[in-house]
Amino acid sequence: MERVGFIGLGIMGKPMARNLLKAGFPLTVFNRSRAAMDELARDGAIAADSPMQVAQQSDVVITCVSDSPDVEAVVLGENGILAGGRTGMLYIDNSTIAPATSRKIYKALKAQGMDALDAPVSGGDIGAQQGTLSIMVGGDEAAFQRSLPILQAMGKNIVHVGAAGAGQVTKACNQIVVAMTVQAVAEALTLAKKSGVDPAKVRSALLGGFAQSRVLDVHGQRMIDGTFEPGFKLNLHRKDMNIVLQTGKELNLPLLGTAQVTELMNSLLAQGKGELDNSALITLYEFLAGL
Amino acid sequence: MERVGFIGLGIMGKPMARNLLKAGFPLTVFNRSRAAMDELARDGAIAADSPMQVAQQSDVVITCVSDSPDVEAVVLGENGILAGGRTGMLYIDNSTIAPATSRKIYKALKAQGMDALDAPVSGGDIGAQQGTLSIMVGGDEAAFQRSLPILQAMGKNIVHVGAAGAGQVTKACNQIVVAMTVQAVAEALTLAKKSGVDPAKVRSALLGGFAQSRVLDVHGQRMIDGTFEPGFKLNLHRKDMNIVLQTGKELNLPLLGTAQVTELMNSLLAQGKGELDNSALITLYEFLAGL
Repeated sequence: MERVGFIGLGIMGKPMARNLLKAGFPLTVFNRSRAAMDELARDGAIAADSPMQVAQQSDVVITCVSDSPDVEAVVLGENGILAGGRTGMLYIDNSTIAPATSRKIYKALKAQGMDALDAPVSGGDIGAQQGTLSIMVGGDEAAFQRSLPILQAMGKNIVHVGAAGAGQVTKACNQIVVAMTVQAVAEALTLAKKSGVDPAKVRSALLGGFAQSRVLDVHGQRMIDGTFEPGFKLNLHRKDMNIVLQTGKELNLPLLGTAQVTELMNSLLAQGKGELDNSALITLYEFLAGL
Repeated sequence: MERVGFIGLGIMGKPMARNLLKAGFPLTVFNRSRAAMDELARDGAIAADSPMQVAQQSDVVITCVSDSPDVEAVVLGENGILAGGRTGMLYIDNSTIAPATSRKIYKALKAQGMDALDAPVSGGDIGAQQGTLSIMVGGDEAAFQRSLPILQAMGKNIVHVGAAGAGQVTKACNQIVVAMTVQAVAEALTLAKKSGVDPAKVRSALLGGFAQSRVLDVHGQRMIDGTFEPGFKLNLHRKDMNIVLQTGKELNLPLLGTAQVTELMNSLLAQGKGELDNSALITLYEFLAGL
């Protein structure tokens, strides 16, 4: 069984690492703050002093951190994964970052005889805990095959989409669709409310037809209840949207709807609502509608 | 069994009227052009000379026409339904029109002792043929109960959403969600293509997660195949979006995303693509992306 290293024990990373332990993988962990490492150590993991040390003690190293600069620092920085790795090591990044950064890291590791996969996840903390994450993977086919027993311990719907960066592109597409569908549902339910029609009945009627979506189902209910516990936090979704828009700029691709919904997210963050679920977008529409 | 009248034998109305005949309702029909009336007459319907005559010979009168002015003319105009109706007549409008027009007609008929339901449908010509339309109904409860045996001959998911106009409001909400979800999927799949990632794999990956929707499933496939036979034509969807935006204006409701996607539809109509399915929105994004 491969020795696995896991870096980044946050709201997603900690339960993912725990699922690797449950599946029997020998596990070395690193996290900037100590508490989460101690918790995993009590479950049988070895705590390391740096990403470099994790790499030295592992065949496969996984990261799950916040953004592109974090991944670059952990992989390419001082005491990083690249410094501790050797030929044959496989690096898997479960973070959501810029496709361009994933491609850069892939090349840096390949040049040292190591493999790399970008493998962002979707499904939230519940999916992480239950091991039911969707995982979108970019990279070489052999590396993907090698990663499968590990990814299957953390997720269910695991798709090899294409070459390095393709996993991040797919995640970007996912975030576009979710954000714009949330906006669609927010506009529709605000129109219903402002018209004096029960939004709950509208949601039910629409779920039976062509407007059906998981967002209408789950977020629509949250909007009707006015309960915005995350879920997926607005400040994280906004971070992902910035990646999408930056990627769009590099491609000279005008993402009109994506840009608009990101501007609305900016307003929600300005109002101090970044810790709320992204369905809280409806509160902005209700304000705009004088409700 | 109630005697039913049906006015407007277009791509939707003709198969709906035929389903009423199949269910055994005595049926009188009227249509501006003769051919569709003759067809229904061969199936057992009686052809009338005017909407007024339809109303004179029916207990329940249904319309399925194009837009608010058409409905106003057919109901309130010379030789219209109001002129031919009497106390106790039930009027059901399956057209998609402005909620304000539906409320105006409701009041005009009520003042003459008649009942009225706004009951726009969703599900396209296939749903009309198979009798599986979703029907969103606004109006009085007693009228809704009376209408059920008739509506059940044409549709399956039949919801009484609220008072007069509520059916049209619900349909407006439906059209918002569908249009903006189509735009979301178009932006996502264009990003994938421009990034060199297979849009078909992205669609599959996203269908397994939170971005799932019927639009991603059905329209996503059409966008990937580049086949835009309707389906639901852009010029009809744009007509409905104009109703939505007009309703928003009356409510002082800023429908930011709805407005944007309608502007994009305007461009598609300017390009002569109004007869294509609304999934052809992606052709505009592909042009914008230099693809």
